[in-house]
Amino acid sequence: MKLAQMEDVHALPIALPEAVDPEEYIVATYLMQYPPNIDMRQMGQALAVEQSTGTWTPVPGETAEVRRRHVAKLIGMWEVPDRAWDVPADLPERHYIVQIAFPEVNIGPQIPMLFTAVIGNISLFGKVKLLELRFPEKFVAGFKGPKFGIEGMRRLLNVPKRPLINIMIKPCTGWTAEWGQGAFRAVALGGVDVIKDDELIANASFNTVEERVKLIMRAEKQVYEERGEHTLYAVNVSDEIPKVFENARRAIGAGANCLMVNYLAVGFPVLRALAEDPEINVPILGHMDVAGVYYASPDHGISASLILGKLARLAGADMVVYPYHRGKVALTRDQCVHVGRNLTFPFYNLRPSWPMPSGGIYPYLVPQIVEDFGMDVMIGAGGGVHAHPLGATAGGKAFRVAADAVAEGRSLEEAAKDNEELRVALDTWRDPFKDIAYASPSKG
Amino acid sequence: MKLAQMEDVHALPIALPEAVDPEEYIVATYLMQYPPNIDMRQMGQALAVEQSTGTWTPVPGETAEVRRRHVAKLIGMWEVPDRAWDVPADLPERHYIVQIAFPEVNIGPQIPMLFTAVIGNISLFGKVKLLELRFPEKFVAGFKGPKFGIEGMRRLLNVPKRPLINIMIKPCTGWTAEWGQGAFRAVALGGVDVIKDDELIANASFNTVEERVKLIMRAEKQVYEERGEHTLYAVNVSDEIPKVFENARRAIGAGANCLMVNYLAVGFPVLRALAEDPEINVPILGHMDVAGVYYASPDHGISASLILGKLARLAGADMVVYPYHRGKVALTRDQCVHVGRNLTFPFYNLRPSWPMPSGGIYPYLVPQIVEDFGMDVMIGAGGGVHAHPLGATAGGKAFRVAADAVAEGRSLEEAAKDNEELRVALDTWRDPFKDIAYASPSKG
Repeated sequence: MKLAQMEDVHALPIALPEAVDPEEYIVATYLMQYPPNIDMRQMGQALAVEQSTGTWTPVPGETAEVRRRHVAKLIGMWEVPDRAWDVPADLPERHYIVQIAFPEVNIGPQIPMLFTAVIGNISLFGKVKLLELRFPEKFVAGFKGPKFGIEGMRRLLNVPKRPLINIMIKPCTGWTAEWGQGAFRAVALGGVDVIKDDELIANASFNTVEERVKLIMRAEKQVYEERGEHTLYAVNVSDEIPKVFENARRAIGAGANCLMVNYLAVGFPVLRALAEDPEINVPILGHMDVAGVYYASPDHGISASLILGKLARLAGADMVVYPYHRGKVALTRDQCVHVGRNLTFPFYNLRPSWPMPSGGIYPYLVPQIVEDFGMDVMIGAGGGVHAHPLGATAGGKAFRVAADAVAEGRSLEEAAKDNEELRVALDTWRDPFKDIAYASPSKG
Repeated sequence: MKLAQMEDVHALPIALPEAVDPEEYIVATYLMQYPPNIDMRQMGQALAVEQSTGTWTPVPGETAEVRRRHVAKLIGMWEVPDRAWDVPADLPERHYIVQIAFPEVNIGPQIPMLFTAVIGNISLFGKVKLLELRFPEKFVAGFKGPKFGIEGMRRLLNVPKRPLINIMIKPCTGWTAEWGQGAFRAVALGGVDVIKDDELIANASFNTVEERVKLIMRAEKQVYEERGEHTLYAVNVSDEIPKVFENARRAIGAGANCLMVNYLAVGFPVLRALAEDPEINVPILGHMDVAGVYYASPDHGISASLILGKLARLAGADMVVYPYHRGKVALTRDQCVHVGRNLTFPFYNLRPSWPMPSGGIYPYLVPQIVEDFGMDVMIGAGGGVHAHPLGATAGGKAFRVAADAVAEGRSLEEAAKDNEELRVALDTWRDPFKDIAYASPSKG
């Protein structure tokens, strides 16, 4: 940030705080960190102008009317800590929470131009992280959101209460469709609800979407006839445009009952186009990979609760798989639970999506996951099923028995008394934090 | 990162360094920073497995054959600094440059599955930043790249040597198509090559792509008749899918001679689909907004040279607008020039793209820009044209005279002697670093 240029910014007739009509503005909240010699009031106003009508140098055409209707407004700024006495001379940076309100008319109900406005060029102006977005109803009304969501998938699977179980096929890639059919059958026999591809396999030359949907849906039919419960197969259709849409159509044509997409690798517009396509009449699982690029920096990017939560739901994901705070991937408990809230809280016309905490999940964690999210949670597991000492069917069964027990208010220890699969799982993978009261965060 | 789980990683039969066939592997280079108690050799191998065949827990199905063909390999690791004597006990983190080779067969010639493999879940494993990607020829051969590139656009515009000039319409948003027609005419009369929309306006309710292309291309025709030089109008088609493609088709139908897309807001697959569509027979400008989300953190994300350079070219951008190191947006000179190199160096079958340094550019910077990039550069300006004291036509003219002068080996001072527009521009905006020898970076 070059101070010489800051001085060019023309004085703006904007009072702080200024009331804005919540029906007409999208409110973005940021964490900003700048050296103490930056005048943050001027900086915040300049960024609001830069991201709407303006340029740093005044130009003809930016009339009072254009500005009144289209300019973004700085509506809140709080320094953390709240320095009221003095600013230490040697402070490298001052930290601010900043709120800017963007006229909805500049953007319309779409994610690309939303990104351009709220975290477009502003992402290039020093330490700026987008923490939260609040939308007016008319913006959200332009989106369809999840087709099924929590209630729709409970009806589809005929599971009224307990947490759902979603198991990924392992190894991640390199397997054939024939091998996958066997792997699917083994896990499905354990009584799980969804079986998903790993994010690393999609329409590969050695294993196409169409061939494995055909084989795996045949296995699904058999398992249904044997057990009386359906299993969804979330087939990964991620690809370039238009192939991603061709993959999806071929999958549906071959009988797929669920799709998966690496939505941050293909982009939000692809997820939305899949979710809002009336011919795609199956639930869609959004996979989190690439999310760390957005949220892992504490200083830059976009928060986990937006990237994994609110925006994924806006774009129509019925389920979002993302890191569990006690799994193998770093995410604080606060962030993890906050993502879940963003997927499920009242959000105008949009159905709630399933939070799917995942990554290093073993049956002993099921009660903790339900404590964190309630019953409306999809438990994501992989290695903890495939590596079960009694085999993958037993691995799936152990999770199902654990989920049933928690839904019935029984402890896992009690449920394990009459279930060998769960007993073996609890003996094989033990909670390293078992004796630590949960309130203390396990990591973070 | 939980050490207890690191110990679960099965020993891998991979020697370090291990030769890999450069025709079969995509090589990713990372900066990784971990606490000193992490065994980085084990960690690097674990990440390579995690991003290809594996899971942390060994599972049946991951056979020797699957692993041989599909596993990613840790092929390089260097600590910075190169600690050979001891590791100080109080070191918070150790820094490593790590190279992992990914089998091309796992991915195929596409960007979404490339992202999933090279910076998918790995983005969630602590401090990991993707610095560089090297591709085998067969991967790149699956892409068409820029349709026009540097040579194609020089032919189109009949400009064999000098830098091109690209001016953005200001204010950014809020204007009508009629107003834009006048603004376009004024700037085009100055003799610039491309006039672009701001990233903040696309197919807005108050100003659609189709209506402004019609009006502006009428102005283009008039200016061509008066001046004998064509001006490209880069109309911003950014939108959701399928609207972005409808916008593009309507623009072409209405006579557009150039398109623009906020490629990081819509996603690389949208840029690629536009660029590889044979019916879109005009150059495409890729706009950088949202790029800071990817590259601004020194610890996380994806480097500027990939996001703004190599990947944008791979996806087919003919021009990429991005921050100039002496403009208003922070970017080091090294990064700025490196992006330009990635856009222009020999890259198998792909044409070179135009680097378009931008943001706070005034005519006094033209010689510096040519020193940084050579003549194959597109100079991006906005406020420095519209706010010219003699008007926007004079603002465009000042840049054109500066570009002509530099191409002829004359100094701006000399050229300004017989050109009032340039003289006024040089008097209005002066180089604050004029007396500082350039080799010292202006900021960093």
